[in-house]
Amino acid sequence: MNRRMVIYRIGQIMLLEAALLFIPMVVSVIYGEVRCFRAFAFSVLTALAIGAVFKFFFKPSDKVIFAREGFSIVAFAWILLSLVGALPFYISGEIPNFADAFFETVSGFTTTGASILTDVEAMSQSLLFWRSFTHWIGGMGVLVLIMAIIPSDSGRSMHIIRAEMPGPVVGKLVPKLSNTAKILYVIYFVLTFIETVLLIFGGMPVFDSIVYALGTAGTGGYGIKADSVGSYSPYLQWVIAVFMVIFGVNFNLFYLILLKKFGAAFKNTELWFYFGMIAVSTMIIMFSIYPMYSGTEEAFRHSFFQVSSIISTTGYSTADFNQWPSLAKGIIFVLLFVGGCAGSTAGGLKISRVLILFKLLQNDIKQMLHPRAVTSVKIDGKTVDSNTLKRVTTYFALYILLNTVVFLLISYEPFDLETNLTAAISCVNNVGPGLGDIGPAGSYAGYSDISTVILSFAMLLGRLEIFPIILAFDYKNWINKNK
Amino acid sequence: MNRRMVIYRIGQIMLLEAALLFIPMVVSVIYGEVRCFRAFAFSVLTALAIGAVFKFFFKPSDKVIFAREGFSIVAFAWILLSLVGALPFYISGEIPNFADAFFETVSGFTTTGASILTDVEAMSQSLLFWRSFTHWIGGMGVLVLIMAIIPSDSGRSMHIIRAEMPGPVVGKLVPKLSNTAKILYVIYFVLTFIETVLLIFGGMPVFDSIVYALGTAGTGGYGIKADSVGSYSPYLQWVIAVFMVIFGVNFNLFYLILLKKFGAAFKNTELWFYFGMIAVSTMIIMFSIYPMYSGTEEAFRHSFFQVSSIISTTGYSTADFNQWPSLAKGIIFVLLFVGGCAGSTAGGLKISRVLILFKLLQNDIKQMLHPRAVTSVKIDGKTVDSNTLKRVTTYFALYILLNTVVFLLISYEPFDLETNLTAAISCVNNVGPGLGDIGPAGSYAGYSDISTVILSFAMLLGRLEIFPIILAFDYKNWINKNK
Repeated sequence: MNRRMVIYRIGQIMLLEAALLFIPMVVSVIYGEVRCFRAFAFSVLTALAIGAVFKFFFKPSDKVIFAREGFSIVAFAWILLSLVGALPFYISGEIPNFADAFFETVSGFTTTGASILTDVEAMSQSLLFWRSFTHWIGGMGVLVLIMAIIPSDSGRSMHIIRAEMPGPVVGKLVPKLSNTAKILYVIYFVLTFIETVLLIFGGMPVFDSIVYALGTAGTGGYGIKADSVGSYSPYLQWVIAVFMVIFGVNFNLFYLILLKKFGAAFKNTELWFYFGMIAVSTMIIMFSIYPMYSGTEEAFRHSFFQVSSIISTTGYSTADFNQWPSLAKGIIFVLLFVGGCAGSTAGGLKISRVLILFKLLQNDIKQMLHPRAVTSVKIDGKTVDSNTLKRVTTYFALYILLNTVVFLLISYEPFDLETNLTAAISCVNNVGPGLGDIGPAGSYAGYSDISTVILSFAMLLGRLEIFPIILAFDYKNWINKNK
Repeated sequence: MNRRMVIYRIGQIMLLEAALLFIPMVVSVIYGEVRCFRAFAFSVLTALAIGAVFKFFFKPSDKVIFAREGFSIVAFAWILLSLVGALPFYISGEIPNFADAFFETVSGFTTTGASILTDVEAMSQSLLFWRSFTHWIGGMGVLVLIMAIIPSDSGRSMHIIRAEMPGPVVGKLVPKLSNTAKILYVIYFVLTFIETVLLIFGGMPVFDSIVYALGTAGTGGYGIKADSVGSYSPYLQWVIAVFMVIFGVNFNLFYLILLKKFGAAFKNTELWFYFGMIAVSTMIIMFSIYPMYSGTEEAFRHSFFQVSSIISTTGYSTADFNQWPSLAKGIIFVLLFVGGCAGSTAGGLKISRVLILFKLLQNDIKQMLHPRAVTSVKIDGKTVDSNTLKRVTTYFALYILLNTVVFLLISYEPFDLETNLTAAISCVNNVGPGLGDIGPAGSYAGYSDISTVILSFAMLLGRLEIFPIILAFDYKNWINKNK
């Protein structure tokens, strides 16, 4: 493996993190939070130092990278980003346990939104901002961001983008990869900006609006209130709900809309499947929770909000769905797995994979009835090639295995099955809340340090879709320099 | 479809059921249970009547059957078997609700062992015998039984055996299929007999010994005591535990042992994977429950018994594992899915499928690291062909979907997630007990009639491995006679 190139690239990312950490440092100045300022300043310097050492001492002679380098860069970059990103919480003393601070930061970058905080309202403003900002950074991906701002110095960057962008198929919008990255980030920024403005218009304080827009955009879910979005006005809840749905849509479709290719954008099967699942789940849950609320609007709003939040893997809440009837909880449990569309900032299995699996099963049943018929799996009128099908089915098996293993590893914790099981699933799928003790009204504070670290890696494995992390830790890669 | 042949075959099966129902009728005479005798006599006559009508009015001119006929025969035969098999419970008045009686019978034939009875000890002996006898019949399969006793009148019976025998690959032991069926049933009978004798030797009453041996052989789990196997002596518990493991082993291996091909029998990867899973799970659970029991033997026995019971999908219990610590419950939850070896009487996903999925993932990761390497999935030194791999991965997806759909369909029931989720999983995997209200100390009595029927079909879908049931209900098959 081209080790120098891996370290060099990670150095580049550390320098970027130093720049990103500069923003909450400014926030700490605005709010006069001295202890936080010092913590951020130290963190910026740490990131700078690591970045400088990596970049200048490991300048590679050979800049070519292959799949294995791409995977390693992404995996180690995300781990190091989280370790350094945890420093402000730890140094400021607001999260005195480093394992907890690491969990909180990983949860931020992976846009999970699971929190070990028991009193979020007691945190400093600058730390709250940083927490939500990690969602925004992690949502679209930090390596995609580098590609967007630094002129590409390698023709093989596709390997990196493929490792960082979720979904079964990664496409380029335009022939040049760095332009694709730029377009994605512009769309991302503009949508976040529109949501912020709509929230401010609805009477939400500016700081809150920015924080909630960042959390929605990354489909993360960190808020600044104990009851998440529960105490904001219905209008604000509607805005956030709609934007959660929007950020769960494949960004390629927004690009098509920009190009005024409305036909192509709205002929997307994944999109309609996504809308369909939201509509059906919302209706059934509304019916189930109707007696608990004072009217149709309220029941519909809470149902739609929670469904959008879980399917887009955001994790905001306006109601404690842990108190809902078993049917509503059952649907939420299943939605924990699904996730948003491929090419969105959402986590989970992804709608496109669910769709491919469905079509594949349909096809298999047909094939079994008519053994000599020639059938194929078609999506958007195009045949899905057998390699993609194979990748989707094995990814599905690996994904179920990951959920199972994480659950088993934390099942020694003295919580009930509901809590441990949904904690594992919620972290792997980057949702955030679950059922039982980790419901919207609870937190992950009860988990031991070991479980906190296990769940942190579960979030990373889920966000990067498993393979990069496994491959990066394959030691044989690191021994053989020329391989 | 060759409809006449399908109905003709089902008629044959009804005549067989009449003969099988004769045995508990004899039991009712022995115990002087008059009401039960009448119920059995009526059931025998019903089965005879249906069988006679089907067999003599639908005599087919063309005896050739293909996959679609095989699937339909198996699916409808199992449903009709259960409807008629439920009559004794219903007519005797001991299970006054027909949906419950149907559930109980399906649970018997599919070797699930889930029960709606709240007081099993109040039941008549002949009904208890019939209940456990359905496990024995269903374990190896009723169509396999027909093949073993009636000289095959069709060269295409493989389609039937394939539809009824679980597992990813069905092999013949000897070139002639009816001989394979005979050998399987002889092994099955002899093993059941040995267990009965060992139980009688241990001081268990003869009736109890037969009932528990039938329940173990079919990996069913119906008992005759409120605490399942809990009140029997440690020796008896050990015998049953060991035989549960034995009946979860691929029967082909017993045939190899009979032929003194010990090498081939013990070089089986699936077998060692199965033993390995039992050993590891037993050790961890023993460690977890150690403080609850009075010594190593007791903790080891309860741990081994419950692990054997769940992995072989039998469902007997010596301890209420619902009261165990979360780690032990977590492992049991995961074992609910696994199941025994292919070609055994156990249900579940099957060890061989789990093994193939594991190897496939290993292979995929290797492939990703060395894109140009030629790799293949090997089991027992032989390469698994790509068709089998494809079938295993799609079956896995369908299987997860089935578990999910069944869970969603019963999730309106007012039980907690633990109960509804494990009820669905336990029924699909033909285990029997679950966690929460349907734990070893509970029953399915709380479920409504609708859910009872849904769960009955879940058991059938699980036992026949999904495809036959789906295909049999494809109406297009029935419309076009010549297709």
